[in-house]
Amino acid sequence: MSKTTLAIIAAVSAASGAAVTAAMYSTRTEKRVQVVASSTTTSTTSTTSAPLPVPPASILAPVDPAGLFQYGFPGPVADLATRSALISSFDRRLRNPSWVAEHITPASLQQEGGDRKNSNFAEDPSIPEKYRGKLKDYFRSGYDRGHQVPAADAKWSQEAMDETFLLTNMCPQVGEGFNRDYWAHFEDFCRRLTSKYPSVRIVTGPLYLPKRETDGKWRVSYEVIGNPPNIAVPTHFYKVIFAEDGTAGGQVAIGAFVLPNAAIPNEKPLTDFEVPVEAVERASGLEFATKLPLQRRKRLCADTTCSLIIKEYAERQKTSAVEGPGKQPSAPTRTSPRNASA
Amino acid sequence: MSKTTLAIIAAVSAASGAAVTAAMYSTRTEKRVQVVASSTTTSTTSTTSAPLPVPPASILAPVDPAGLFQYGFPGPVADLATRSALISSFDRRLRNPSWVAEHITPASLQQEGGDRKNSNFAEDPSIPEKYRGKLKDYFRSGYDRGHQVPAADAKWSQEAMDETFLLTNMCPQVGEGFNRDYWAHFEDFCRRLTSKYPSVRIVTGPLYLPKRETDGKWRVSYEVIGNPPNIAVPTHFYKVIFAEDGTAGGQVAIGAFVLPNAAIPNEKPLTDFEVPVEAVERASGLEFATKLPLQRRKRLCADTTCSLIIKEYAERQKTSAVEGPGKQPSAPTRTSPRNASA
Repeated sequence: MSKTTLAIIAAVSAASGAAVTAAMYSTRTEKRVQVVASSTTTSTTSTTSAPLPVPPASILAPVDPAGLFQYGFPGPVADLATRSALISSFDRRLRNPSWVAEHITPASLQQEGGDRKNSNFAEDPSIPEKYRGKLKDYFRSGYDRGHQVPAADAKWSQEAMDETFLLTNMCPQVGEGFNRDYWAHFEDFCRRLTSKYPSVRIVTGPLYLPKRETDGKWRVSYEVIGNPPNIAVPTHFYKVIFAEDGTAGGQVAIGAFVLPNAAIPNEKPLTDFEVPVEAVERASGLEFATKLPLQRRKRLCADTTCSLIIKEYAERQKTSAVEGPGKQPSAPTRTSPRNASA
Repeated sequence: MSKTTLAIIAAVSAASGAAVTAAMYSTRTEKRVQVVASSTTTSTTSTTSAPLPVPPASILAPVDPAGLFQYGFPGPVADLATRSALISSFDRRLRNPSWVAEHITPASLQQEGGDRKNSNFAEDPSIPEKYRGKLKDYFRSGYDRGHQVPAADAKWSQEAMDETFLLTNMCPQVGEGFNRDYWAHFEDFCRRLTSKYPSVRIVTGPLYLPKRETDGKWRVSYEVIGNPPNIAVPTHFYKVIFAEDGTAGGQVAIGAFVLPNAAIPNEKPLTDFEVPVEAVERASGLEFATKLPLQRRKRLCADTTCSLIIKEYAERQKTSAVEGPGKQPSAPTRTSPRNASA
């Protein structure tokens, strides 16, 4: 079984992208680390730059584990991309973003510069080919290419909107009942926050959560799409929302939400999906708001009403909609939107 | 379901570890990034240090997504730890290492300084509490605390051996038939390579591989242990071996192996588990040997015989064994080894 699986993973041809990644680790000497004989634990916070050189104090250690880095640093590399509309961090193993951060204001949502009719879904060439999500992987997968930062949040320029169509801003999402419905209403809720808060920051990303099975054990189980199978289908998605009062050092209303990647009835209250920020941290391995003092924090859903306004997908398709005409599915559907891939 | 799951994840108490992680992102100004209005993609290779500041050329962009970092950088943080016997990189989401690198030589294996009787399994305090694997998570889980760098490879000092007992060097492994048997024989094979190669580097780590299910779809499915459930049980383990000829710029015999986390009959040839290095790269999201020119590479199993020598667990327990007396399970077994946790 493992042979089969790996043979398939390896099937896609080899060394493309190697040049790019090799360039990242350009000078051998910089990556070399002297090993000290003491048992002092040196824990750095960097995953990609090698540890800083320490003085060659090797008295006893007969080995040099850091010598491995002469062949390259294993990573993981998170492919942090700083764009004008968003900042994204990519998970090369799951071939989805880890998180995508955006910023919206009343002015940014008013500004009309981009039209999603002019944007196309695109692979992100900044990811080495070996780890890149591909358009063909979504083709006929049955899942939408689900924007993490919504296109409608980046209408202020065509370039900004185009950035949201990169696959590093996408995860496989259930279309009907979720991406085109409840999740879209949730995105609309985020935009409506700007009527109360002059500045809103949103971090969005996938989760892969366990559930308890009939044998009493907890298991994570998720589909993997593509050929070879390589893009994980998240079980859930989170948003961590920072609604700012517009003053430096002011109050920040924080809300964290986790929704299943599944059809959700429109009647379901949004507050059913509210969770502590820490729950998202534990589930994602990420950190949010570590530098925001407690006295500056408020709970978003205590400060404002956390509820959705339902507008049907067909309705939204007809309008040029401020909140954006839903999402483009990657497979044909009843509504046969643009970019159907049959 | 998501509520339940997250409630459990969040159940363990809160802010411990926050001080540590906050210290990582000490100065706010360093983390701020100016957003430029151009659509230039700035992709950095760092996951933890924030992007470098770019000149404030913001002409059009009405938003500043990087402003999020005033609240802290989300990560992921890989907790790279440089020790004398090993270097490890930790996955905070799965609460297992991503990889652990070691180095062995004929001399390092000869040197007698440590005894596993004096080592104890220990949580790694360098990992913030929120993301740390705990001893109690393994307790009665049914899985061994499986060394990634084997204790027997670090006999050269007690401190070195103690380092291998940190939970950042462990993954949940099936005990009988795997950790205490086939996998132990495989570790012995790695040590025996030093009779031919004067310097051997080994990178070991977990994988979470999909398999094709009866509905034709590929799914990844793995158990999660602990209370709340938080440590993933890998489906497979890899080793990437670099057997060096001892000369600078010399030949390197590379072997990559992927074994299922399951009982494997001793009769199964090791070569059944040999895979291209690239297969491990695609499956793990990591990179190996990107800086090693093709003309310096040889295939390990073409250069030497890749086969196991079988020594039964009970036998190994009796001896003070050069190759190390197997592993300590986390649950009681017939052989009732030390550290049984009933």
